[in-house]
Amino acid sequence: MSDRQKRLLIVGGVAGGASCAARARRLSETAEIIIFERGSFVSFANCGLPYYVGDVITDEKKLLIANANLFKQRFNIDVRLENEVLSINREKSEVNVKNHQTGEVYQEYYDALVLAPGASPIRPNLPGIDLPGIFALRTIPDSRRIREWIEEHKVTKAVVVGGGFIGLEMTENLVHRGISVTLLEAQSQVMLPFDREMTTPINNSLLSHGVILRLGDSVVSFESHSEGGIVVKTKSGEVHQADLVILGIGVRPESTLAKDAGLEIGDKGGIKVNEKMQTSDPQIWAVGDVVEVQDFVTKEWLLIPLAGPANRQGRVAADVIFGRDSTFRGVQGTSVCGIFGLTVACTGVNEKTLQRLGWEYGKVYLHPGHHVGYYPNAKPIDIKLLFSPEDGRILGAQAVGEAGVEKRIDVIAMALQNGATVFDLEEAELCYAPQFGAAKDPVNMAGMIAANALRGDAPLVHWQQLNELDGVLLDVREVGEFEAGHVEGAKNIPLSVLRDRMSEIPPNQTIWVYCQVGQRAYYATRALLLNGFDARNLSGGFKTYQAVKKD
Amino acid sequence: MSDRQKRLLIVGGVAGGASCAARARRLSETAEIIIFERGSFVSFANCGLPYYVGDVITDEKKLLIANANLFKQRFNIDVRLENEVLSINREKSEVNVKNHQTGEVYQEYYDALVLAPGASPIRPNLPGIDLPGIFALRTIPDSRRIREWIEEHKVTKAVVVGGGFIGLEMTENLVHRGISVTLLEAQSQVMLPFDREMTTPINNSLLSHGVILRLGDSVVSFESHSEGGIVVKTKSGEVHQADLVILGIGVRPESTLAKDAGLEIGDKGGIKVNEKMQTSDPQIWAVGDVVEVQDFVTKEWLLIPLAGPANRQGRVAADVIFGRDSTFRGVQGTSVCGIFGLTVACTGVNEKTLQRLGWEYGKVYLHPGHHVGYYPNAKPIDIKLLFSPEDGRILGAQAVGEAGVEKRIDVIAMALQNGATVFDLEEAELCYAPQFGAAKDPVNMAGMIAANALRGDAPLVHWQQLNELDGVLLDVREVGEFEAGHVEGAKNIPLSVLRDRMSEIPPNQTIWVYCQVGQRAYYATRALLLNGFDARNLSGGFKTYQAVKKD
Repeated sequence: MSDRQKRLLIVGGVAGGASCAARARRLSETAEIIIFERGSFVSFANCGLPYYVGDVITDEKKLLIANANLFKQRFNIDVRLENEVLSINREKSEVNVKNHQTGEVYQEYYDALVLAPGASPIRPNLPGIDLPGIFALRTIPDSRRIREWIEEHKVTKAVVVGGGFIGLEMTENLVHRGISVTLLEAQSQVMLPFDREMTTPINNSLLSHGVILRLGDSVVSFESHSEGGIVVKTKSGEVHQADLVILGIGVRPESTLAKDAGLEIGDKGGIKVNEKMQTSDPQIWAVGDVVEVQDFVTKEWLLIPLAGPANRQGRVAADVIFGRDSTFRGVQGTSVCGIFGLTVACTGVNEKTLQRLGWEYGKVYLHPGHHVGYYPNAKPIDIKLLFSPEDGRILGAQAVGEAGVEKRIDVIAMALQNGATVFDLEEAELCYAPQFGAAKDPVNMAGMIAANALRGDAPLVHWQQLNELDGVLLDVREVGEFEAGHVEGAKNIPLSVLRDRMSEIPPNQTIWVYCQVGQRAYYATRALLLNGFDARNLSGGFKTYQAVKKD
Repeated sequence: MSDRQKRLLIVGGVAGGASCAARARRLSETAEIIIFERGSFVSFANCGLPYYVGDVITDEKKLLIANANLFKQRFNIDVRLENEVLSINREKSEVNVKNHQTGEVYQEYYDALVLAPGASPIRPNLPGIDLPGIFALRTIPDSRRIREWIEEHKVTKAVVVGGGFIGLEMTENLVHRGISVTLLEAQSQVMLPFDREMTTPINNSLLSHGVILRLGDSVVSFESHSEGGIVVKTKSGEVHQADLVILGIGVRPESTLAKDAGLEIGDKGGIKVNEKMQTSDPQIWAVGDVVEVQDFVTKEWLLIPLAGPANRQGRVAADVIFGRDSTFRGVQGTSVCGIFGLTVACTGVNEKTLQRLGWEYGKVYLHPGHHVGYYPNAKPIDIKLLFSPEDGRILGAQAVGEAGVEKRIDVIAMALQNGATVFDLEEAELCYAPQFGAAKDPVNMAGMIAANALRGDAPLVHWQQLNELDGVLLDVREVGEFEAGHVEGAKNIPLSVLRDRMSEIPPNQTIWVYCQVGQRAYYATRALLLNGFDARNLSGGFKTYQAVKKD
């Protein structure tokens, strides 16, 4: 079939769908392209919604990246808002569409169909879940309703259910509006893409901003309060009162349309696609939050709802539909979240996943400044790097701090994409001037520590293994630091006098060495090793110990 | 020779020398390690000196990363300050050292000698160059003298000679102290690692901060003013009065010691070393600003004084001396400079160099926001990406803007290191939340534009070729934008009505299309190509035109 007759129908007009449509037009001037969008808006900035609720973005129009008119003028694409695709007739290659403006139901033929309906917020089936004042956040009308509710009900107290990206962003934005927030997270940590010990700074930041944080507790019911508002009861027996409840529990792929059409659905409930974004029906493609994607590192098929990959998937689908040999390379899970001036970002796989899969891995913790310490206002970044113990290949990284965090994760994400190793990070030549970085950038340092461990120069142990220690725990910080707080049972010999006092260290024992962040312990470990001791550096030092202990 | 007897002498104790010494100790507890430092400080933050002059760094002690005592305690390294190595006796494997504190001259034997004397600021042999008030900036005492001069002479006017990193940083810092600055640059642009058109925003920023900028003009003499201060006369005949002159003309490797010892010196005047940082004498190594390094992209041997590579070279030299198989991979030239809130950063090779070498290359210009436009305070970044037209391999990148600049260069630097292509940049999965980036990050966009050009989907032309145009220059911006300013001779058909008015475009002619930054022109180029026209996108749009025109 030539492009001239080609008719491309797209279900859903936000990230993946809109990208697919625009790309398709760039590949064919003659194809007929129609987007069916159930909602009232096409191509809106869904990642901006929490900031619109928070009044950081004050003008709703800013959220409209494009509108139907612009799609028509710029791309000759027919966007049909409030038109819902009810079902797919695969035998006739038709969709049944309901126009919610007129009530009319009609059919449209397709040569190629792209499903991009996204994912919808999970609304757990709990008593009282439909009470007024309980909102999820997915669309512009959702955010508008929350804004109106806040203003009309003069909201002063809110409960946010779920400590993921949306939950944290909503918490920040509600606090920004002067609302007291209780954050309930059923798991034992916020931000599940991170390992738990890396979330300690997030918890601290939430608490220091007055948020009431409840981990490992979940809602059992919502009830109306006699004097107005909602009573949120939890599993632990706590009762939280609120004028507003935000559900940020996660999303579920909108795969019903595909399922009803008999398309293959994956184990996680998303539409199953191949690397061409093609479903089990070769005439139907699917992109965005509705599909299962392959994890770039582990090769598992997962649900990873992210805007960047959704856009890329849309372009790949359009390419393939118009005869090009594009493929989607999977998702690294690179993501970032801002919370009260703290930035948390990650890429690749986390330790929990590696443990679940039973993979061998190495890890390092470090806490370098975001730029040199001699320039004012250096802020520490907590970094965790995961790598293959065989060849040093990067598996994943997590970072938390006040500045320069996403830069380091982006650099590591690029390295991971290229199959780079910790030895490459060690060698990376990155920007350095006093206000921007360091001659040894945090990325270099992460690579160096890992490389030193892999080469056997500075073997690492981890605080999580502390109970396995059968030997000496050596704190090489200065006496004043040691006295201000140390790990129970540790012996203190400062690095500055270590060589003079080496005779105090028992031979033929394992020595686990720590300092504040790991650097002095590295020097000490080297000195001990070269003097015949069996020494190990406790990665990340006392600072990581404190995070792990709280964990 | 076993480590036990090894005696490592190091000449120079700042970046490369200090790194080498510390690394050596981590490889051998028994080696004797001595650093001879002519100056009064070891391991100080030379990159911070302009900010100490500017009082951004207020405490001189902050600049001291380590001192001799710390080197002794922490690393058992003997640092001899104010001890100058006068000559090398290679036959006897000895250095002759003068202790400037005592006047004594003595010899020390070495098993391995590392030269890390750095580079010294160029003081051109001009009339009046030795007048009081004319300073270069290399050491802590230099910066202290400048600070004292500013205070004692109540400096209100300064001339900075040279518009490189030090010249710009000094300009900013003097202005920060309320001093009026005239910046003289002999070349036709500031910041020579950049291509000239990319420096337009720097010029604009200098001018908007009250700096008097003179490009293509150089000093011919300095004279004393009868009422105090210095009169700076230039080639163009201008006369500038100043209370203070800062020389930021560049540095020259301190290779005299090596030359006198008969070591091989490269064409650029730096010590010649191999990838093991070994000089022509296998018992002598050299690291840091004194050596010529191989450009990672072009493989040319150049002088590229940078702190990060100096540190890496120091570690490589120590590794090799202690029997390890480390190599130095060359220098990408990744660098960054802050100037009045503007960040300028680059990595890899620039277009001037590619032209000089006669290499084939492709390039793109773009001006994306540092984060999504719908979130407040998005700042544009001007980006130029250079790549191989054969396989898309990244050759270099330059970026200028107010925020997020060094992040994009760091990501591209990592990609370049890994031999990645523009197709990899297109696919990069980077951090996106509204305040941090975009679903299509600037790095992705640079990759996409280049990849689209390489695939033939959206061929590019450049404003520098405008005089070659034999056809139609088409401006696809809206009428109001066109009327507010456009390129002479351009025809205006907005993208929004292009399909309706395509008949107005003459067939069988070349059509060069532009818009404001290149995106709408891309859409228009695709539409024209698919409709049979021979269309090209003018990379970077009207914004790049304005920079090139001013160039």
